[in-house]
Amino acid sequence: MSSSDIFISETIGTAVLVLMGGGVCAAVTFKRSKAFNAGWVAIAFGWGFAVLTGAYIAAKSGAHLNPAVTVGIAIKGGIPWSEVPVYFAGEFLGALIGAVLVWLTYYGQFRAHLTDPEVLAGHNGEEGMVDPAAAPKAGPVLGIFSTGPEIRHAVQNLVTEIIATTVLVLAILTLGLSDNGKGVGAIGTLLVALVVTGLGLSLGGPTGYAINPVRDLGPRIVHALLPLPNKGGSDWGYAWIPVVGPLIGGALAGGIYQVAFA
Amino acid sequence: MSSSDIFISETIGTAVLVLMGGGVCAAVTFKRSKAFNAGWVAIAFGWGFAVLTGAYIAAKSGAHLNPAVTVGIAIKGGIPWSEVPVYFAGEFLGALIGAVLVWLTYYGQFRAHLTDPEVLAGHNGEEGMVDPAAAPKAGPVLGIFSTGPEIRHAVQNLVTEIIATTVLVLAILTLGLSDNGKGVGAIGTLLVALVVTGLGLSLGGPTGYAINPVRDLGPRIVHALLPLPNKGGSDWGYAWIPVVGPLIGGALAGGIYQVAFA
Amino acid sequence: MSSSDIFISETIGTAVLVLMGGGVCAAVTFKRSKAFNAGWVAIAFGWGFAVLTGAYIAAKSGAHLNPAVTVGIAIKGGIPWSEVPVYFAGEFLGALIGAVLVWLTYYGQFRAHLTDPEVLAGHNGEEGMVDPAAAPKAGPVLGIFSTGPEIRHAVQNLVTEIIATTVLVLAILTLGLSDNGKGVGAIGTLLVALVVTGLGLSLGGPTGYAINPVRDLGPRIVHALLPLPNKGGSDWGYAWIPVVGPLIGGALAGGIYQVAFA
Amino acid sequence: MSSSDIFISETIGTAVLVLMGGGVCAAVTFKRSKAFNAGWVAIAFGWGFAVLTGAYIAAKSGAHLNPAVTVGIAIKGGIPWSEVPVYFAGEFLGALIGAVLVWLTYYGQFRAHLTDPEVLAGHNGEEGMVDPAAAPKAGPVLGIFSTGPEIRHAVQNLVTEIIATTVLVLAILTLGLSDNGKGVGAIGTLLVALVVTGLGLSLGGPTGYAINPVRDLGPRIVHALLPLPNKGGSDWGYAWIPVVGPLIGGALAGGIYQVAFA
Repeated sequence: MSSSDIFISETIGTAVLVLMGGGVCAAVTFKRSKAFNAGWVAIAFGWGFAVLTGAYIAAKSGAHLNPAVTVGIAIKGGIPWSEVPVYFAGEFLGALIGAVLVWLTYYGQFRAHLTDPEVLAGHNGEEGMVDPAAAPKAGPVLGIFSTGPEIRHAVQNLVTEIIATTVLVLAILTLGLSDNGKGVGAIGTLLVALVVTGLGLSLGGPTGYAINPVRDLGPRIVHALLPLPNKGGSDWGYAWIPVVGPLIGGALAGGIYQVAFA
Repeated sequence: MSSSDIFISETIGTAVLVLMGGGVCAAVTFKRSKAFNAGWVAIAFGWGFAVLTGAYIAAKSGAHLNPAVTVGIAIKGGIPWSEVPVYFAGEFLGALIGAVLVWLTYYGQFRAHLTDPEVLAGHNGEEGMVDPAAAPKAGPVLGIFSTGPEIRHAVQNLVTEIIATTVLVLAILTLGLSDNGKGVGAIGTLLVALVVTGLGLSLGGPTGYAINPVRDLGPRIVHALLPLPNKGGSDWGYAWIPVVGPLIGGALAGGIYQVAFA
Repeated sequence: MSSSDIFISETIGTAVLVLMGGGVCAAVTFKRSKAFNAGWVAIAFGWGFAVLTGAYIAAKSGAHLNPAVTVGIAIKGGIPWSEVPVYFAGEFLGALIGAVLVWLTYYGQFRAHLTDPEVLAGHNGEEGMVDPAAAPKAGPVLGIFSTGPEIRHAVQNLVTEIIATTVLVLAILTLGLSDNGKGVGAIGTLLVALVVTGLGLSLGGPTGYAINPVRDLGPRIVHALLPLPNKGGSDWGYAWIPVVGPLIGGALAGGIYQVAFA
Repeated sequence: MSSSDIFISETIGTAVLVLMGGGVCAAVTFKRSKAFNAGWVAIAFGWGFAVLTGAYIAAKSGAHLNPAVTVGIAIKGGIPWSEVPVYFAGEFLGALIGAVLVWLTYYGQFRAHLTDPEVLAGHNGEEGMVDPAAAPKAGPVLGIFSTGPEIRHAVQNLVTEIIATTVLVLAILTLGLSDNGKGVGAIGTLLVALVVTGLGLSLGGPTGYAINPVRDLGPRIVHALLPLPNKGGSDWGYAWIPVVGPLIGGALAGGIYQVAFA
């Protein structure tokens, strides 16, 4: 497959992933949303089915949608290292596009929320996304774009992201999923989606399970750039953790695979 | 396959889709329902499994069940344009039948609800379906039949429906699902059902995700015609949005498919 | 396959179905249960996965587990009519065994609940199973065994059960599931389980979706016979509806299949 | 397959199972977790998808992950009895590792919880895991590691664990799943995961459904050894029930399989 085919497929697939994933965070955050306060089960399944949808659409390129997955697959030998930058570029661009699409889909809700006196008074109405005490510089809608920790502690947060991502990528590698960028089997993609749902339910509590560098960094950049009134800070101090942690986890999974299963 | 086979299959499948989808809205709306207030997770899975059931029953005709899907498949070349009106007709008739079946299934509940003084006093008891402030002319059971916006703004609502439908139809087209009206694979239909569940969780917040012209228009007509006491208005001012938005989304998905994946 | 093989397989499969289905009703009903008040989503998925488990275990005999399904399959010609009594007998015995197993599994909870002064004072603690106003003669744990209507009206309740069962059996027949008693495909059984979950979410509101004569009648007999203190009445006045309604629905689905899809 | 391959595969798979299963208990228990109080539906799906993830990763060795499953498969003749100790050893070591990983993932939450005056005053903040009245010697985080009964009664609790495990192992044996340690089919593993979710919803109410000796005993040992402040007792008086009950259930399922289905 040509580099441009990989790039286009990963861009579209990651855009859908971030659109739907960010969408479910928006859906439970905004008071004027039909899914307001629908809870963590909604978020975990929402992100799982976001992976499902994005992965089917991007099956042509193997549907990595995540640099941590790309790293794990490259270590396993599933793709040549020369293709890694192409995957990264498509994933990153897709995450930017997806975050903008969340904003367009929920444009009216963003406006109403960010001009709501209650929200501005500190009751940000978010459902389990960013704890204002832990993240005093995180604005009231940042949780729709990016993750944040419940208890802020760099080493601890990094460990959590590493563990969760290692499980994700190990499950993908042992499925033979995404191998060689040849596209994924239908059942395999369903399984990965449910693994992601499971990771959200089980290991998402402390940090909101970024487990994907571009899923966190791309929307954070969009949050910083969008012309939203009263949007507050983008919490750049935390931004490196959901990038570095997942990359380490992906590499660790690749290593475990080579040692224990290859 | 003959036109009458397509017509019958799409009619029955869409009737089941709208019966079960409208059914879950009824189930969470009525106080005297065992699923009262079961929340948005129930609605999102209810609609997803409504698609699952209708799509398996209509597998013979490819189980479009949705004019936006038919348009996308026609653009891709999956069916000849001459069959499009046959699909549309079956889908539309099925939606009418499905809405009547919801009424029959919940007949006692409709009666009790629409003669309940609390409901008539403005506490319409609906769970996240139609915001009375946003839809002053929407009656207290309209949300069981048709969608309505949380924040009423034509352009914004249209954009939301277009984005959500584009994702739906693009996922269907990239699955190779429904191609040529030859019937869908078992796994493919499951996946589409979960994509619909995911879209409900993630992008359903602002408008209630019609993402299907007949799913909204057919039941709205039935709402207008049924002899329900105190049923209130059918909100015809909004009716064009969940028709036009999904059709644009279906066409857009067809175009993206041709450009990026064909 | 021999009659005794069919009988044993259907008995075990239906016992598992009723054990797990009754179990989830017990789980949400009893205060001293970890799933107390877990809500309608828990019940709908609990019954769906009860079908899944029972159906896999009884795959050898086609996993009908439900006389309404047996009737529909016989009308379609999937099994000879001479085998119908064997299926019925296994299904009925299995339902009796399953209800006894629910009692054994939750023995401590039954005792605590039925000697709890609050429950005996009329606060029966049940979660959406039997409305005491609608069912004054239904005891405080009957909802764990059998269904009851939210609004008691024979014709209306019958119509609801007929519609829901017709959808169930039509979905099974169009899947080619259970044909000839040869055992079901793995995906097909998953789909039927999710159809049942969907029916619970969407059409279970008015009557609690028996959609299976033995699932309701068998446990009702066990309720009448078990030596439970303060168990109250078994609501025999309602008992015919979840038997007759599903049988009509199964036959109707068989007829629709023959006319529209055969 | 060599013994060391079995051992490594079962160790890693069981570690993932216990990490994710313990993780979801942690996620709903801790106030400073995004999934706090997410309820029993979250727990049941969390454990189901923990099985899914662990089982895919350990497919190479048949993914028993549970001595009760190993016993059932050995009785069926799926593996030679000489391999049983190897499976047991891997499963046990994996459970220890998994419990330690839960602690690492939620390290900050454990610290905050066990120094929270409200928790120490007896409001242990746990969501449906261990009833303090029933388990006066169970510490405030024991429910994250091991199961405990809602109503403490050895015979009753044993019966509940036996029934639930019998259903689990019978479903696995009739699937032909895990046979011969040759690895499991993709759909089969999904089904087992949903069976486990269903068992949690339906039969988990009284005892928290250990249904796996190492899943309970391993983490209980880790609970006893970890340097957690104010962690309280490990409830060793109950510890034998979730070991003996599931082993009996596994053997019973093997026997039923041989008699009824072989």
